[in-house]
Amino acid sequence: MTSLNEIGKNAKDASRILNRLGASEKNNGLIKAAEALEDESNIVKIIEANKKDIDNAREKNMKESLVDRLSLDKGRILSMADGLRQVAGLDDPVGEITSMKIRPNGLQIGCKKVPLGVVGIIYESRPNVTADAFGLCFKTGNAVILRGGSDAINSNTCIVDIIRNALEEVNLPADSVSLITDTSRETAGEFMKLNRYVDVLIPRGGAGLIKRVVETATIPVIETGTGNCHVYVDADCDIDMAVDIVDNAKTQRLGVCNACESLLIHKDIVKEAFPKIAARLKEKNIELRGDDTVRELCAGVIPASEEDWGTEYLDAIISVKTVASIDEAIDHINRYNTGHSEAIVTNDYNNSLKFLNEVDAAAVYVNASTRFTDGNEFGFGAEIGISTQKLHARGPMGLEALTTNKYIILGNGQIRP
Amino acid sequence: MTSLNEIGKNAKDASRILNRLGASEKNNGLIKAAEALEDESNIVKIIEANKKDIDNAREKNMKESLVDRLSLDKGRILSMADGLRQVAGLDDPVGEITSMKIRPNGLQIGCKKVPLGVVGIIYESRPNVTADAFGLCFKTGNAVILRGGSDAINSNTCIVDIIRNALEEVNLPADSVSLITDTSRETAGEFMKLNRYVDVLIPRGGAGLIKRVVETATIPVIETGTGNCHVYVDADCDIDMAVDIVDNAKTQRLGVCNACESLLIHKDIVKEAFPKIAARLKEKNIELRGDDTVRELCAGVIPASEEDWGTEYLDAIISVKTVASIDEAIDHINRYNTGHSEAIVTNDYNNSLKFLNEVDAAAVYVNASTRFTDGNEFGFGAEIGISTQKLHARGPMGLEALTTNKYIILGNGQIRP
Repeated sequence: MTSLNEIGKNAKDASRILNRLGASEKNNGLIKAAEALEDESNIVKIIEANKKDIDNAREKNMKESLVDRLSLDKGRILSMADGLRQVAGLDDPVGEITSMKIRPNGLQIGCKKVPLGVVGIIYESRPNVTADAFGLCFKTGNAVILRGGSDAINSNTCIVDIIRNALEEVNLPADSVSLITDTSRETAGEFMKLNRYVDVLIPRGGAGLIKRVVETATIPVIETGTGNCHVYVDADCDIDMAVDIVDNAKTQRLGVCNACESLLIHKDIVKEAFPKIAARLKEKNIELRGDDTVRELCAGVIPASEEDWGTEYLDAIISVKTVASIDEAIDHINRYNTGHSEAIVTNDYNNSLKFLNEVDAAAVYVNASTRFTDGNEFGFGAEIGISTQKLHARGPMGLEALTTNKYIILGNGQIRP
Repeated sequence: MTSLNEIGKNAKDASRILNRLGASEKNNGLIKAAEALEDESNIVKIIEANKKDIDNAREKNMKESLVDRLSLDKGRILSMADGLRQVAGLDDPVGEITSMKIRPNGLQIGCKKVPLGVVGIIYESRPNVTADAFGLCFKTGNAVILRGGSDAINSNTCIVDIIRNALEEVNLPADSVSLITDTSRETAGEFMKLNRYVDVLIPRGGAGLIKRVVETATIPVIETGTGNCHVYVDADCDIDMAVDIVDNAKTQRLGVCNACESLLIHKDIVKEAFPKIAARLKEKNIELRGDDTVRELCAGVIPASEEDWGTEYLDAIISVKTVASIDEAIDHINRYNTGHSEAIVTNDYNNSLKFLNEVDAAAVYVNASTRFTDGNEFGFGAEIGISTQKLHARGPMGLEALTTNKYIILGNGQIRP
């Protein structure tokens, strides 16, 4: 087994080569990797490796929903390849000089987009992340070191081998992508401190994983994912629109970070609006947990506790609170949210501006569902995750989030007086 | 003494208010703080408090150069006030919507610059950082929590009190700036993990402080400062220019992060160039540590060890190495540098491009001194530090580095299909 240090060093060396490549050479690598994943004999290999992972998971009595996330069939493998082809088709952000100014002393100072270098990705069960993460990092000239979950180790190893071979065949560095095959907790911990070789660490997974990475890593981290998202229904609003938006934000897909977990309603409209919203949510079998006001309005609403306000259910549950003003709504959101996505439904111009200005989150909506917080929906063409921190990237991260800047300074002998 | 949690909560509350202020209200706060620092009775108070710090420092036998950094007189206090007035005069980056696009479904998605929220600054002896950091953070709508060194505790407490009072007098939140007066190591450690209230942590100081923050903090950190900077003298270059640039980069100021610590010379020009460079540096009493080639060329060059290549001297010492090619120079730099500032002196077009593209650093120079890596020299008007990491900000950080983005989305009932 290659040591963590060797993996790091090899990745750093590969990143130096990737940094020198033009977009056409990188796109060629992506296409070759896609072709390799589409190759019939490779598909058989991946499915066999995946079967081992699934057998192990069933032996450990993994929940079927998780087994499903782990499972690969021909269709899912082809869509990984498709993903790589799509990334190849996107514009390459690397190399753009976003500004170039001349200083009074004649120095020309330019700011250029360059790759981050080596990106570490720590993720859980879904083996499609393996190909996705490689594609986005490779496109932006970064080497990537993957540390997937132990559940998917056979699938991940097989996918990474196939991509590495494909790159080698066209004389691109195999170490553009590597997998840490020792899935122990200790090795993960060491990986998070590999500052010498890794420039950025992106965890993708549940709150527990994110928390551990944030607490352990000494490498700069981009925190992703957790979303305790709210929809606030303002006093003056289109109630039918509110019903549709709450329904969509809560039920269009349950286990995702941009789903609505909590509903706030202005007291002046609660009597009229809440019964309609509750009726729609009950049709979709959503459990409602509310304060006394809403419980008096509709039967079958469970009392909400303090804990509910801070909970990201990722499930068929929503909490409901009545507020006396938009200020109370904003204060509540800023207290309990995770900085992800927040929406107001309103017809009031001043309240729309106030909400947009004062709610502290990556994405703030007026009269639309929180479910749109997504790289593809935002038009980025791809997404490496959704950042809920404020450094570097906030919200859906496309290719540009995988670059940094470098100042280039052209002189003709300037020295500092 | 206010607890760390209270300081954090108060700062977060203040940041909500600052987020709502326009530029003129913030500039008014900066001017009032400047006026307070210019007030004669306050100047007396600061000098008295500073005298306590200096007496304590002398009792502990602090080096005189450090005592000087700690010392405040009327001139230095007035220049802190001047700094606040200058910051008031800069453009406010907050609130700009840098893009606003319409998606096919009619959603308007805009990207807006907003304050980070609460910024933590950990620094060492220099009490002028107290006013500077407040000014830059306040201008960008951020509350700041300062944790200065114990050496400067009396000066810092006095300065912060004066600014807080000035803000209160014009009904701006005093908690826009707060100081952690418990300067124990334990409290510093707790502060670095105050994720609930602090959005970003910026350490300013020596390599030891930076290392401790990077290793301890769970709050996202912007690493600043250390600079093992190189000047590479290429085979085809103007030797007189090389002498001037090396001299300036090494000697214009010794103890700074953008000073040159290591000189690389192409073997084809070393015989001609090195004696001239060495002669100039010896005039300035710089100690030279070199490889065998350069030691044979000039008397009095001490042998350089492996350790020298990786050392940021911050002193009157420079290491010198002969390289066989520009590739060897780039490899050496990418191996030993700290990602700060690197320069080539060359007349070769292709080598200039190669160096700019392949050297991995925040600022890469052709034919100019590394000493220009500085917010003011880059035309940013101010500087909160120089980032040597790749996340968020790289190189000199002006006001914009103290902002993040927020996506604002305007809909008319869109739900995700």
